[in-house]
Amino acid sequence: MRLLCQLSIILTMAISGPSFAADELMKAAQAQFKPIPATAPTLPGNPATPAKLVLGKMLYFDPRLSASHAISCNSCHNTGLGGADAQETSIGHRWQRGGRNAPTVFNAVFNTAQFWDGRAKDLEAQAGGPMLNPVEMASPTAHVAEQLAATPGYVTAFRAAFPGLGDPVTLENAQRAIAVFEATLITPNAPFDKYLKGDTAALNDTQKSGLKLFMDKGCAACHNGINVGGGRYAPFGVVEKPGASFLPSNDKGRFMVTKTASDEYVFKVPTLRNIALTTPYFHTGKSWDLRQAVAVMGTI
Amino acid sequence: MRLLCQLSIILTMAISGPSFAADELMKAAQAQFKPIPATAPTLPGNPATPAKLVLGKMLYFDPRLSASHAISCNSCHNTGLGGADAQETSIGHRWQRGGRNAPTVFNAVFNTAQFWDGRAKDLEAQAGGPMLNPVEMASPTAHVAEQLAATPGYVTAFRAAFPGLGDPVTLENAQRAIAVFEATLITPNAPFDKYLKGDTAALNDTQKSGLKLFMDKGCAACHNGINVGGGRYAPFGVVEKPGASFLPSNDKGRFMVTKTASDEYVFKVPTLRNIALTTPYFHTGKSWDLRQAVAVMGTI
Repeated sequence: MRLLCQLSIILTMAISGPSFAADELMKAAQAQFKPIPATAPTLPGNPATPAKLVLGKMLYFDPRLSASHAISCNSCHNTGLGGADAQETSIGHRWQRGGRNAPTVFNAVFNTAQFWDGRAKDLEAQAGGPMLNPVEMASPTAHVAEQLAATPGYVTAFRAAFPGLGDPVTLENAQRAIAVFEATLITPNAPFDKYLKGDTAALNDTQKSGLKLFMDKGCAACHNGINVGGGRYAPFGVVEKPGASFLPSNDKGRFMVTKTASDEYVFKVPTLRNIALTTPYFHTGKSWDLRQAVAVMGTI
Repeated sequence: MRLLCQLSIILTMAISGPSFAADELMKAAQAQFKPIPATAPTLPGNPATPAKLVLGKMLYFDPRLSASHAISCNSCHNTGLGGADAQETSIGHRWQRGGRNAPTVFNAVFNTAQFWDGRAKDLEAQAGGPMLNPVEMASPTAHVAEQLAATPGYVTAFRAAFPGLGDPVTLENAQRAIAVFEATLITPNAPFDKYLKGDTAALNDTQKSGLKLFMDKGCAACHNGINVGGGRYAPFGVVEKPGASFLPSNDKGRFMVTKTASDEYVFKVPTLRNIALTTPYFHTGKSWDLRQAVAVMGTI
């Protein structure tokens, strides 16, 4: 099986004479994909409130959560850079490089798990990782709450976000608030969403040709659902492995979480939402060209 | 002359029985200080337009202006951290440290010149400095325009901001747009502004006592005008020099710009606006305590 992936949707390939029936294509697409909802989803056990959202937004952009006070969530998941950072791997504490390409925060709430290897089950669990990771924000565990408790504005904001608690200023509550903010970083009403909701004119003929090709070639077997990805794990290289530049042998992916042999070089399928905004590609960040990334995925 | 500076305004010193006449205090204050205007001032030769403001805001937050693509204007002049970065000196390219404490961008438009040594005459000139400084954002001169010209959204934004130019995507125009955005980062209608506009109830008695002390002791000789500072240069240590921890001998301040002996250890008088939000203090950033900073300024 050869794959030519959905990235082709947004490529301006001149495909002559699309021959599919419009209604059939839409029905097929609706069976594989779902539109992004118009409002932020509710997180289980972590209901959103205005106060929690305000706090989460403050925390997301605050570099004081890092040991250096120079790196924030937004440093690597920059809302102005497609929710990522346009780096192969991110620059962290003392200019150390992270191990994998920073995934976009946009629509991350719809992923089945977080990180490339799925080691965090949700946004709330994910939010604690980079703060404490010595290669990223490098905060000692106690530092985060100490830092926040020493900032009067945060104490007020935590009390408002988590009323009725004796000491609401904790790392866990910071993670909850950040998750609530991140759940609002969704991008509904793309042309693709409008199409899925029944607007046949929302995609032009070239885009429809790409969508058909994407489904016909099997890309949608992995890249499906709300996020056109993000819903399952798959070996990088379903048919054959890509070259070592894209798949170095020292990163075994989900195997590092499960220790199961069949999970070697298995990664969470990344979202293709807003893919044109989030160069470079793959968990290594080694592809800077969407056409190249499509070609790699189409031959493995 | 001993100075006990205006920082005392915001200290909660218990001063018993303020004895000044309210009207006299207000008149004296109005002669020394000016309220921050309600709207952003117009920059000479660089009129604001909505398109230029939108572009300037994009640029201000975009780390792609740095060689690493990891450092933006906002990294060191963080609008969520009082317009500064809560560092003694900022972390720059490859984790190098800057030479002086990052001044706040808030109300910087009202300063008579920019940088601690006044080497940039205005915001527009200042904006180019950190982008190219090898210790800060470290972009080669040509890199900035190349980077922007390769980003389709920026080409559109520059054309809208600078209509009628053949090639509007230049470093100079980036500086102009950033300056227009920065000129909007003003903080009008503080209690002090309301007081200066005639509202006697805008300051409480403790604050009025501090204001009187600030003027009586001569602090306002340097810290005056709209920004309660930012309007002139002064030797750090008008009477006697502070210790080497606050005034190391290797930074001769404005002397490095003018090469005039009398400018040794002369710096631009910093603004005291929002001073409680911009720890640490002094050009070295060596004071983390506002009370200590007041004490140092009060004895030199």
